[in-house]
This record gives sequence, structure tokens and C-alpha cells, in this order.
Amino acid sequence: MPFKLTILGCNSAIPTVEKHPTAQLLNANERFFLIDCGEGTQIRLKEYQLNFQRINHIFISHLHGDHYFGLIGLISSMHLLGRNKGLHIYAYQELKAIIDLQLSASNTELNYPLFFHPISETNEQILYEDEKICISNVILNHTIKCSGFIFKEKKSKRKIIKEIIEQYNIPFDKYNGIKEGADWIADNGEIIKNKVITRENTPVHSYAFCTDTIYNEALIEKIKGIDLLYHEATFKKDFADRAKETGHSTTYEAATIAKKSAVKNLLIGHFSQRYKNIDELFIEAKATFKNTRLAESGLVLDFNKLNK
Amino acid sequence: MPFKLTILGCNSAIPTVEKHPTAQLLNANERFFLIDCGEGTQIRLKEYQLNFQRINHIFISHLHGDHYFGLIGLISSMHLLGRNKGLHIYAYQELKAIIDLQLSASNTELNYPLFFHPISETNEQILYEDEKICISNVILNHTIKCSGFIFKEKKSKRKIIKEIIEQYNIPFDKYNGIKEGADWIADNGEIIKNKVITRENTPVHSYAFCTDTIYNEALIEKIKGIDLLYHEATFKKDFADRAKETGHSTTYEAATIAKKSAVKNLLIGHFSQRYKNIDELFIEAKATFKNTRLAESGLVLDFNKLNK
Repeated sequence: MPFKLTILGCNSAIPTVEKHPTAQLLNANERFFLIDCGEGTQIRLKEYQLNFQRINHIFISHLHGDHYFGLIGLISSMHLLGRNKGLHIYAYQELKAIIDLQLSASNTELNYPLFFHPISETNEQILYEDEKICISNVILNHTIKCSGFIFKEKKSKRKIIKEIIEQYNIPFDKYNGIKEGADWIADNGEIIKNKVITRENTPVHSYAFCTDTIYNEALIEKIKGIDLLYHEATFKKDFADRAKETGHSTTYEAATIAKKSAVKNLLIGHFSQRYKNIDELFIEAKATFKNTRLAESGLVLDFNKLNK
Repeated sequence: MPFKLTILGCNSAIPTVEKHPTAQLLNANERFFLIDCGEGTQIRLKEYQLNFQRINHIFISHLHGDHYFGLIGLISSMHLLGRNKGLHIYAYQELKAIIDLQLSASNTELNYPLFFHPISETNEQILYEDEKICISNVILNHTIKCSGFIFKEKKSKRKIIKEIIEQYNIPFDKYNGIKEGADWIADNGEIIKNKVITRENTPVHSYAFCTDTIYNEALIEKIKGIDLLYHEATFKKDFADRAKETGHSTTYEAATIAKKSAVKNLLIGHFSQRYKNIDELFIEAKATFKNTRLAESGLVLDFNKLNK
């Protein structure tokens, strides 16, 4: 099953033609989760031929403009293009009033239901859960309240091996129990171990999105061993003071969090406009954490092909 | 003196990589007026190397998103880039609450003063005036309250002809009176006509921005003889019913308004996404009003070179 992250934008603060503010699309088994929505996100989605009507859940980390100014435009375009299925937004409560005021000013009654799910400022909770995935918030430490998001695929049931199941003549109504790990007792009393008649399903994946935040060791336990950590690295390490002052992290700090939490892969982003050569940030982070990658607009990471 | 209009976006409703929502920049003698501000306007300004910190006045026609969703991003970027001089916004009152709520949600106190000037829903008034230009609103007829804007350069004083002034030995303290039309009485009593010692200054220019609106003959008198009329032409003429229903105009209707008001030039825009070949709209409008041009992102119209 596909589990892919597309970077729609990964720059901080001020958008330009080439550099887009934060937005990411996670395709988890054909469920599409949008994470942050800076100005122009709907345009990036079109540019990368990602049908935004397939997005049913949007997570907004915080209310600095480079993380949500594109949301109202996306909501409006979904409406104008005839959407009628519900859209769920997970964000701090203040965003609801901003959306409502803008819809009211244009006298717009959306064709589709908008479900607003406020994020707690103080608690880390499950925001969304179904049979395949569980998504929760994690509290970050920024200049204003800010939340990261952790996406954990659930362990899939085992896959039955059709030929062997047929060989033992196992009836269909037993399949579910076997997928969940039951052995099979043959007519002659022989116990056929579950491992013989099933195999592991595709591996489960996990993703943590952590922006914007200062260096925060409280994160380490919460993201331990995760497959991919997106951690902001707004500044190079010589700007540690500036990073702290503005509620951000350096390359070194992002890589240190990755190392201490033993994540499998690190993706850095949210680069300050001051850096013309982003490779310098990459080199710095990689020196501390080997499996580092640089975010860039249009990058697609397939979790099935990541270092694990 | 420069009097130039740059089209930053001229498409309706839904932005794409190539098609940008409404925004225009009028450079009137090095005063920069921004008219409407759809999503991505700040990016277009950068793309066309127009320094947005030179904009001191922004006019927003109405509160449909394709005309203002880029405003809060522009306001924020001006702030982040260290602006300290005031910014004046002319728009319907509801926009102020939307801006205030977004600034408050991000805990932002702007480095510069933001002056909000509410537009009257019922009266057409002067919104801005200085010694060189007068800007007023004109009520349009759309699905929600909507305003056009008329920019009229003021008649300049006459220009003195330096050589002749020197020949008659006219003292400096009389220059102003002469620029305003006074004759000169020479020492021998001879009356030197003002026309001999001065010449016409550069011609004055006028511009009317009219979007979004249904066909509205009430406009005709108000824009009579104007140099350039930007009039929306969302649809081709076979979509007259759809145009009326959605509060818009067809090519034929825009051209008819141009013709009846005897404007010198017509610029059509706000094209529906349904049209892949915009030339078809051009051909239709031109059939009724010869001096028609098509708006497109990046188009710059120099009023000194327009048909007059």
C-alpha cells in the first residue's frame, strides 16, 4: 500500500516564485492528509497533479501565516469546484473564527460540511484514528502555541497464503481469525501453525512532523524510532542564539533530536530566506545524523523505500 | 511622468500555476497603488521586480477571495521585511476584522501603522486625493457589495519655457503664477501671452477599474471619456444568462459599456477558467469596441503610449 509524503513547500516566512511556505501531503494508503497550508498550497497541489478534492483531513500546526494563509483559498476552491463530501480541519480554535469570518464576508455557504476539530493547547491526544492509522498531536515549543503531528500506521493483520489455505481446505469464515494469528487444527488433529498459512503483511510506517520549535528534548521519547522525522532547521548552527530567540532550531539541533530519538530518517526544512545555498544546511545536519535529507518543493518520499 | 498599469493577475475564481487571480499595480507618478490582491499577489510583485514596500495604498473591490486572499500575506511580508511607513487600505469594513483577527492569532503587532479606510456601500466618494491624483469609488452591481475605482490625474500646471523666460528677464518669484496661466507684462508695457512663455505639461491620465459587475448602464456617465477602462468580461456573449446569474459581464457587455461611455481604451479581464483560448473573448469584444486589449499577467500598459 502506498505511504508517500510530498513536500509542497518548505521555506520559512516569505514566499517567492521558487520558494514556497510550509505544506505537505501525506498519502497513507490512499487517505490524503494535508499538513500545513501556506499561501499558494492549492497551486502547488495542481502543479504536482495532486487532486485536492481527495484530501479529507487538514492539520494546521500553528497560526503563523506561512503555515496557513493558503487554507481559506483551498477551502473556497474546493467549494467552487463542487465538493460535497466533508472536510475535517484540526487546528487551534482561533482558526475557526478566521475561516467563519471570511466565509461570512463573501456570503458563502459551503456546499460541503466543514468539521473543525480544535487541538488542545495542553494535552497530547489522538486527533484521528481509523482501522489503518492513528494521528496525534505533540506539543512543540515556539513563539506561539504550536503543534507537531505524529502519523502511525497500525500493524496490519497477517496475509493468508491462498494456496496453503486451499490445501488444508480451510473454510472462508475462519479467514479473519487466521489473519489475526490463529493456528488451524486439521481434521486429523494436526496443528498447522499460523506462520505456515500466513505471511507478514506490508510493513507499517510512521511519520512525525515537527515545525516550528526550538530544540526540545521533550520530543525525544515521543518520536522514538519513528521512520521519518521532519524537523525544522531554520538556521545553520552558528545562528543558535537567533534560532532560540525566534523559536526555531538549527541544523545541528534538528540532527541531535533525530540522533537521540533514534529515528530512521531525518528530513530538514523551513529554511530561512538568508540561505542561498541550502546544501550547507544539509552538510551540517548530516555530520550529526547520517540519514538526513533536504526538503524541497516537489520532493516525494516513498516510505517503502526509506532506510529502515 | 510615468503612469503605468501592471497586471499581476486577471483570472477569476480558482488560481493555477499560470492563471492568477485579480491584482493590479498602478504607478501614477511614482505613487504605487495596488488594486485588489488575490492569493499569490506578493509573489507576482516579486516576479515582476516591483518593490512592494513602495506601495502605500491598497484598494480592495470586494470580499470574494479571488480579490483579497493574498492581502494578509502581503501585509505580513511587509512587516517581516522591516517596513515602518504607514499602509492605507480602502475596503469594506468587514475586511478590518478579518485582518485584525489574523494578526491577533499570530500575536503580531505590525512594525508599521495600518490605516483602514472603510468604503461606503451607498455613496460614491473621494477615497484619496493629493496634488496630483484623485481616487474615488464607483458602486458596481455584483452578487455581494462591490466597488470599482476611478483614478484621475489632476491637470498639471503649465511648464515654463526657460529660454523665453530668460529673454524677458522674468524674476523667479513670478514663475508660479505663470505656471498657473498668468501673462507677463514687460517693462515696456507689452503683454506677453502665457502661451508664449509656457507650454502644456504632460497630459493627464485617467483609469477606471470595474470588476466584478453585471452589465450596468449606471456606469456610463461616471466613466465617460476615461483613458483606460478595465472591465471584467468573465464570459463569452453566448453565456449572457450565466453572467447575469453570477453577477458578471460578457465580452459584448464590457465592450458595450466601453462604447457607450466613449472611453479611449478597454482592457478586459477576469476570465472564466472555462476558456482555454482567451483570444475568442478578445475577438468578441473587439467586434463591438475596436480599442480593446486582453489582460494577462505581466502586461504593462503605459498611459503615455495609449490611444487617446
